[in-house]
Amino acid sequence: MTTATSIVLASRPQGPATLENFRLEQHPLPDPTEGELLVRVIWLSLDPYMRGRMDDGPSYAAPVALGAVMTGGAVAEVVASRHPGFAVGDLVMGAFGWTTHAISDGAGLRKVDPRLAPPQTALGVLGMPGMTAWVGLTDIAPMKPGETVVISAATGAVGSVAGQLAKARGARVIGVAGGPEKCVWATSELGYDVCLDHHALDEKALRAALREAAPDGIDVYFENVGGKTLAAVMPNMATGGRIALCGMIAWYSGQNFDEALPLPRVWSTILTRRLNVRGFIVSDHFDRSGAFAAEVAPLVMSGRMKLRETVTDGLENAPAAFLSLLEGGNFGKALVRVGPDAGAA
Amino acid sequence: MTTATSIVLASRPQGPATLENFRLEQHPLPDPTEGELLVRVIWLSLDPYMRGRMDDGPSYAAPVALGAVMTGGAVAEVVASRHPGFAVGDLVMGAFGWTTHAISDGAGLRKVDPRLAPPQTALGVLGMPGMTAWVGLTDIAPMKPGETVVISAATGAVGSVAGQLAKARGARVIGVAGGPEKCVWATSELGYDVCLDHHALDEKALRAALREAAPDGIDVYFENVGGKTLAAVMPNMATGGRIALCGMIAWYSGQNFDEALPLPRVWSTILTRRLNVRGFIVSDHFDRSGAFAAEVAPLVMSGRMKLRETVTDGLENAPAAFLSLLEGGNFGKALVRVGPDAGAA
Repeated sequence: MTTATSIVLASRPQGPATLENFRLEQHPLPDPTEGELLVRVIWLSLDPYMRGRMDDGPSYAAPVALGAVMTGGAVAEVVASRHPGFAVGDLVMGAFGWTTHAISDGAGLRKVDPRLAPPQTALGVLGMPGMTAWVGLTDIAPMKPGETVVISAATGAVGSVAGQLAKARGARVIGVAGGPEKCVWATSELGYDVCLDHHALDEKALRAALREAAPDGIDVYFENVGGKTLAAVMPNMATGGRIALCGMIAWYSGQNFDEALPLPRVWSTILTRRLNVRGFIVSDHFDRSGAFAAEVAPLVMSGRMKLRETVTDGLENAPAAFLSLLEGGNFGKALVRVGPDAGAA
Repeated sequence: MTTATSIVLASRPQGPATLENFRLEQHPLPDPTEGELLVRVIWLSLDPYMRGRMDDGPSYAAPVALGAVMTGGAVAEVVASRHPGFAVGDLVMGAFGWTTHAISDGAGLRKVDPRLAPPQTALGVLGMPGMTAWVGLTDIAPMKPGETVVISAATGAVGSVAGQLAKARGARVIGVAGGPEKCVWATSELGYDVCLDHHALDEKALRAALREAAPDGIDVYFENVGGKTLAAVMPNMATGGRIALCGMIAWYSGQNFDEALPLPRVWSTILTRRLNVRGFIVSDHFDRSGAFAAEVAPLVMSGRMKLRETVTDGLENAPAAFLSLLEGGNFGKALVRVGPDAGAA
């Protein structure tokens, strides 16, 4: 028998999430029965969508139940197996949640080959966030060479891939990120033509800076944030522009509603400029995994796709790291190192 | 020489348009020179988009200049011609504006054959409003048989065509219209499965009625109005739903902003239900005229497509008729009879 340590949802947030909404628990795991395997988590992914799962409202996925382990993707090592498809020592990616150990029947697991790329990239550039960026720019708001693309949360797990993809495909790419350090990395390493620091610019200044950076208008907006950035982008959209609506982190906790434009103004812009605004969830598009990997994996393996990670050590620190992510405290992909690398345990 | 009587824009509205924003004027027209023709207007079309042309803000079309003739489509008879393509007695449709007579060089004119359909249908079901309905349901928010479609302004010039098209294509069709008379016509004549009277229902009641009428959600919303109807529709959209954003008459004068949902709520619905919201202007889609006419003209000529018109006599009454249109006072296509039929002048 194994003892798993997990983070469970202790209470639902009223407004912004707090540490009190989480609780560390230990619970025994039975040994795997026939067809099952036991894994030890190495890397836990932290992603903004998890904030939505803490609420009880209607969404595209069921909320985490009170007292249940927080959901999340993780890379883990198989430590016991009675499943014919998995052997001890295999690395697997799956929705194991915020936990040190888990039992699985193998459904939904993907094997990770550490010789091809660092295993944690299966949670980032080669996983859900990277594919979100790819689907957004390929199928949801397709961009053409020479167009102007704006990426919010430009250095985040999704945005950093979207920005580099847009650049590789011949767009002029403008990022919006929080702080000078992120903006410098965006232009010097990721290839953004311009990066605007939303910490230093109020809505009006951000709007003016976008107008200057995109004098012919924004053809594609990759929307991760809502809030002030959206308010500054909207008046700068070009006729025929497309918005891939992927996230709205500024509004996840019911905050910053004062930074929203009035709906009639947004509706009017969509109408008169013939915009196409499309919400999407990457899990609807898993049939595109092959095409995604074919384009992005070579970029990662050759080192042309730049990566950055904010790693927090120890599962017990996951709640604080998650709250920091919601405030933009991460730089690149947010990960929790839950356990040592495979072979080192 | 001919004396034309015209309605010009006297002043720009501050909020809702009023009669004082218009002025009746007479001005002499020169005889047509080589390559020109002179027309006498018979039918003037009144359309909600004209409200936008009275404002000075940015839009997809230039505003009407102060003192200039109000823009608008009209059916007219050629009364003098030095243009090889047009003969006296020809009926033509063109953007002649709110006027009794106009000089044209023939650009943008379309001949109207009165043997095929009543000439004024070139301004309605077989013209811009009808094609708006067709493009919206065909290219912008394509619908599949068995889906649930909601049409706002359900008995208007655009909505009445959209509703009948959706029904003919196998949708379950729900209309929203103002008043019991319109709703009865919608269900008894146009084939709507349900029609909800927004005069009789507040936002909450309208939302509940839509939920009852569309228990599996709304797949396609043909959006003409904004305001309370949009607020009631949005929470009832189905996952994967499409919104063809064609107009927002409730908000054209800066009114009814209190009936708008908060943008973050709308953004969240677009995201979590993966909606596709697309603004469109029919003039971007004139390359689809052939396909439109091929489907709709036979329906009109056979009488299967039902029509209704609100006709106002006399150009001098156009401003009042237009203000009534903005308040939903029309029933079906709003027309001004500016002069007698061809041959009867």
